[in-house]
Amino acid sequence: MRASQFFISTLKEAPADADIASQKLMMRAGFIRKVAAGIYSWMPMGLRSVRKVENIVREEMNRAGAIEVSLPVVQPAGLWQETGRWDKMGEELLRFKDRHERDFALQPTAEELITDIARNELRSYRALPKNFFQIQTKFRDERRPRFGVMRGREFTMKDAYSFDRSAEAAGVSYDNMYAAYCRIFDRLGLSYRAVAADTGAIGGDRSHEFQVIADTGEDAIVYCPDSDYAANIELAEAVAPAGERAAAGAAMTKVHTPKVKTIADLVDFLKVDIKQTVKAVVVDGDDDQPVLLLVRGDHELNEVKAEKIAGIKAPLTFAAPGAIKAAFGANPGSLGPVGFKGRVIADRTVAKMADMITGANEDDQHYTGVNFGRDCAEPEVMDIRNVVAGDASPDGKGELAIQRGIEVGHVFYLGTKYSEAMNATFLDEDGKPKPFEMGCYGIGVTRILGAAIEQNFDDKGMIWPDAIAPFTVVICPVGYDRSTEVKAAADALYQGLLAKGVDVILDDRGERPGAMFADWELIGAPHRVTIGDRGLKEGKVEYQHRRDTEASALAADAMLEQVLAKLEL
Amino acid sequence: MRASQFFISTLKEAPADADIASQKLMMRAGFIRKVAAGIYSWMPMGLRSVRKVENIVREEMNRAGAIEVSLPVVQPAGLWQETGRWDKMGEELLRFKDRHERDFALQPTAEELITDIARNELRSYRALPKNFFQIQTKFRDERRPRFGVMRGREFTMKDAYSFDRSAEAAGVSYDNMYAAYCRIFDRLGLSYRAVAADTGAIGGDRSHEFQVIADTGEDAIVYCPDSDYAANIELAEAVAPAGERAAAGAAMTKVHTPKVKTIADLVDFLKVDIKQTVKAVVVDGDDDQPVLLLVRGDHELNEVKAEKIAGIKAPLTFAAPGAIKAAFGANPGSLGPVGFKGRVIADRTVAKMADMITGANEDDQHYTGVNFGRDCAEPEVMDIRNVVAGDASPDGKGELAIQRGIEVGHVFYLGTKYSEAMNATFLDEDGKPKPFEMGCYGIGVTRILGAAIEQNFDDKGMIWPDAIAPFTVVICPVGYDRSTEVKAAADALYQGLLAKGVDVILDDRGERPGAMFADWELIGAPHRVTIGDRGLKEGKVEYQHRRDTEASALAADAMLEQVLAKLEL
Repeated sequence: MRASQFFISTLKEAPADADIASQKLMMRAGFIRKVAAGIYSWMPMGLRSVRKVENIVREEMNRAGAIEVSLPVVQPAGLWQETGRWDKMGEELLRFKDRHERDFALQPTAEELITDIARNELRSYRALPKNFFQIQTKFRDERRPRFGVMRGREFTMKDAYSFDRSAEAAGVSYDNMYAAYCRIFDRLGLSYRAVAADTGAIGGDRSHEFQVIADTGEDAIVYCPDSDYAANIELAEAVAPAGERAAAGAAMTKVHTPKVKTIADLVDFLKVDIKQTVKAVVVDGDDDQPVLLLVRGDHELNEVKAEKIAGIKAPLTFAAPGAIKAAFGANPGSLGPVGFKGRVIADRTVAKMADMITGANEDDQHYTGVNFGRDCAEPEVMDIRNVVAGDASPDGKGELAIQRGIEVGHVFYLGTKYSEAMNATFLDEDGKPKPFEMGCYGIGVTRILGAAIEQNFDDKGMIWPDAIAPFTVVICPVGYDRSTEVKAAADALYQGLLAKGVDVILDDRGERPGAMFADWELIGAPHRVTIGDRGLKEGKVEYQHRRDTEASALAADAMLEQVLAKLEL
Repeated sequence: MRASQFFISTLKEAPADADIASQKLMMRAGFIRKVAAGIYSWMPMGLRSVRKVENIVREEMNRAGAIEVSLPVVQPAGLWQETGRWDKMGEELLRFKDRHERDFALQPTAEELITDIARNELRSYRALPKNFFQIQTKFRDERRPRFGVMRGREFTMKDAYSFDRSAEAAGVSYDNMYAAYCRIFDRLGLSYRAVAADTGAIGGDRSHEFQVIADTGEDAIVYCPDSDYAANIELAEAVAPAGERAAAGAAMTKVHTPKVKTIADLVDFLKVDIKQTVKAVVVDGDDDQPVLLLVRGDHELNEVKAEKIAGIKAPLTFAAPGAIKAAFGANPGSLGPVGFKGRVIADRTVAKMADMITGANEDDQHYTGVNFGRDCAEPEVMDIRNVVAGDASPDGKGELAIQRGIEVGHVFYLGTKYSEAMNATFLDEDGKPKPFEMGCYGIGVTRILGAAIEQNFDDKGMIWPDAIAPFTVVICPVGYDRSTEVKAAADALYQGLLAKGVDVILDDRGERPGAMFADWELIGAPHRVTIGDRGLKEGKVEYQHRRDTEASALAADAMLEQVLAKLEL
């Protein structure tokens, strides 16, 4: 491509409403233009990267034996009503009526539609396994779209759905997709982790998120540097501390703690170690009675874990202030297990504590020296907190570490949730109808671009992996229009790279060098070759990788081979 | 591709609601599945052809210098309000509110959005010309979706928009796109015509439809077999008959014509040549006064031509019965120019008639022997009828013929219609802002598939051009699982064709030959190679093009070369 034939539109400043580095850089580099909140046009430069991601995803899905389909963006309500999602999905499912007053929605995913196809098309076990995928426009009417294309409303997603005879066979399909996802993210050139994720109501252990590592990520990823263990923070198990609980060493003593409402207040007021304090959270039980949850003062309640406890209301519901006052005789800020007659669940760490500091169930009063078994009953003990860095790994192989990630893919075993709801069955070998065992597998195609930038940028702009850069190589001739030598060398390199199938752009716009370099640093082309008269006189051209702090010399008479070597071609 | 790894799902019968051959065949061959009226899922087989069309369109658009973008399907109302199309478009523009009660529409085209991009991005004449295109999902909420993917509601369209400094430069862009479209339809392997089309309010002569020739087409295409002349019927000029009007030969005579309401009734009742009769149509003028339009009895009024006449109300409005009775003293069926005091416009053919038979402006009465200038005033003379086969070509080079076509592409000079409405200007060389001169260029990507089938099918199924067949070659081994010789020969041909880049499918499903052949005749793979034990013993395999009535023999030991020769590779 010649830049004069292309469309390059860079901006000095990002629009004021851009709220994250990748969004600012994509706007400045002319990758996207905003059309409405969470809705963007893909401009020529950005679309090149989108297409490269799509092609890698498509190739690997094909290689894995998945078969491409294309399901309509506009879907009728009927299918969504069959599974109940028409009612359950809330406002994220954008609904409307057509001119004949029939209900439709814009697809956020396509489980219903693909299950409908399966029940019509896959009649026999002989047709299984099958895995259908599409790369298609999706829409989610996010309440607060943000982070540019990472949490937009209209986006491109690859969604795949597998259909199997048995849970065991579905496991094979799952593993196949997991492997395909690893190949995809390897090829994209991104640093990522596959982490175990919660399976919610489906159960089982087959759910993994593919997280691109980035400090700005919304998700916390837990992993063990000394083993393969990796999970998202919702799922990561907090194991019990080693050893037995220490014996009680202090008498329970009531302390007046005026204006102390939080753990921080308490630590500050009493000048104690936060690890002696206990945080009390009250949630509703299935019977609407309050349940007291206890985690150590420096720990955080894990709501996903709490919600899964038998007898606790789902979705997790914090008790109303009036109910708390009635049950405890005090307001939040002074709550604790002593004297409370209801159900008490202590985190595994709390269960090993002695001489705790807790609320006294009396406003502005706390107890020190609280001990289970002596001052109150032994609680139920469960894992109800988020892990923290330094916790023991659940596999016993070291300590956990935490990094931030951006979820770009998810593989999920669905079981028969959709097939049973939609009565989607096949005839098995024994002649009996059985519901399909299903899996679903998503990749956020456009989100990957944002994540790739969050992982790879500096103060000059983006830094693209070769595989998904809008252009792999940029040739920057200085004086293309003035110098026949520069023009000849630049054209020769350009034609030579094109002939080798390299995605190269020759910047023949006639910009001055500073502006030209700034554009390409912003756009993030990974390989730049600068060709000027002065260098040519010495038989040299300049090469600079986008991560290099300075340029290095290539021999002008061997520049094609030397650039190809940089590309590992 | 091996058929066992793919998804082939053919049906014996098309669903009852399929209303055209291409739709029936696409449903039967498993190309599409209906989701709702005018909304289809593209199944694996059909999607392959869609992608091939997309790729050819994309390659030729790139070759023509157009630059790809991707504009959102969901577009905010604001832009559409700027051009007034939010109000004008009617119910075809599907509108809805998002969760925050803001108005949006699904894109039927994207003139507004691309013009918005141009006014923000193309600031100077130096940035021109530019041509942006996208291949994207579109939605039109057709009142009565029909003909499968040809008049569906959700469809894929390639839309391109050119921006130029001047009308002259826009003409160059237009010609460039016209040439690209010819290359596209040539490569698709379809028989087509580019025909001049009406430019409506824009004016000028730069509008061409690309019509795929098919007997079932909705459009009538007028062309001259002896010249380049081609136009759609709305535009095609009906020239005046040669020679002078004959002298009056009969006296005007009133005839009682009871129950005669139509020209057919009149011809039947009077036993006259229909070419002596004149049809009267009354429309409203701009001043709401009735205007009488006269065409010969066997001709049809061309409403597009009539609507463009100065003084006639647009859109064309037929006069109300009460107004007709008041102005003529009679009801439709007995109207004519004699005695009518208002404006009379005669078609060029009528203007050359003598001794006409017309309504007498008295119910159940007609006149014979009517002559302009003697019995009523000379009328205004204009071209207001559709041409018919045998009319003289407007270029004077022969007689016109008419065939049916399916519109699959349209190139259109827009002038400054959108740029002026949206105040989209660039700074010209003289430092002054000027509105962009625009053109728009559409190709119905998914419609092309329907049109290709309408042009190429027989009682066994579809017949695909090589370029857009879901598979170019199918290998049908008879006894693949039983015979090591058959398996070896089939695998060798399969691998040999794959190595040459041929899109080949090996049918290893183990179907019996009859069912296998029927599937591939229905699907329409253009080249079939059948390999069986009996043939191999004689050193032969069978080749049959989908259009051949019987198979021919290829030498088994040279089958790869011989198949490649059939593909002209």
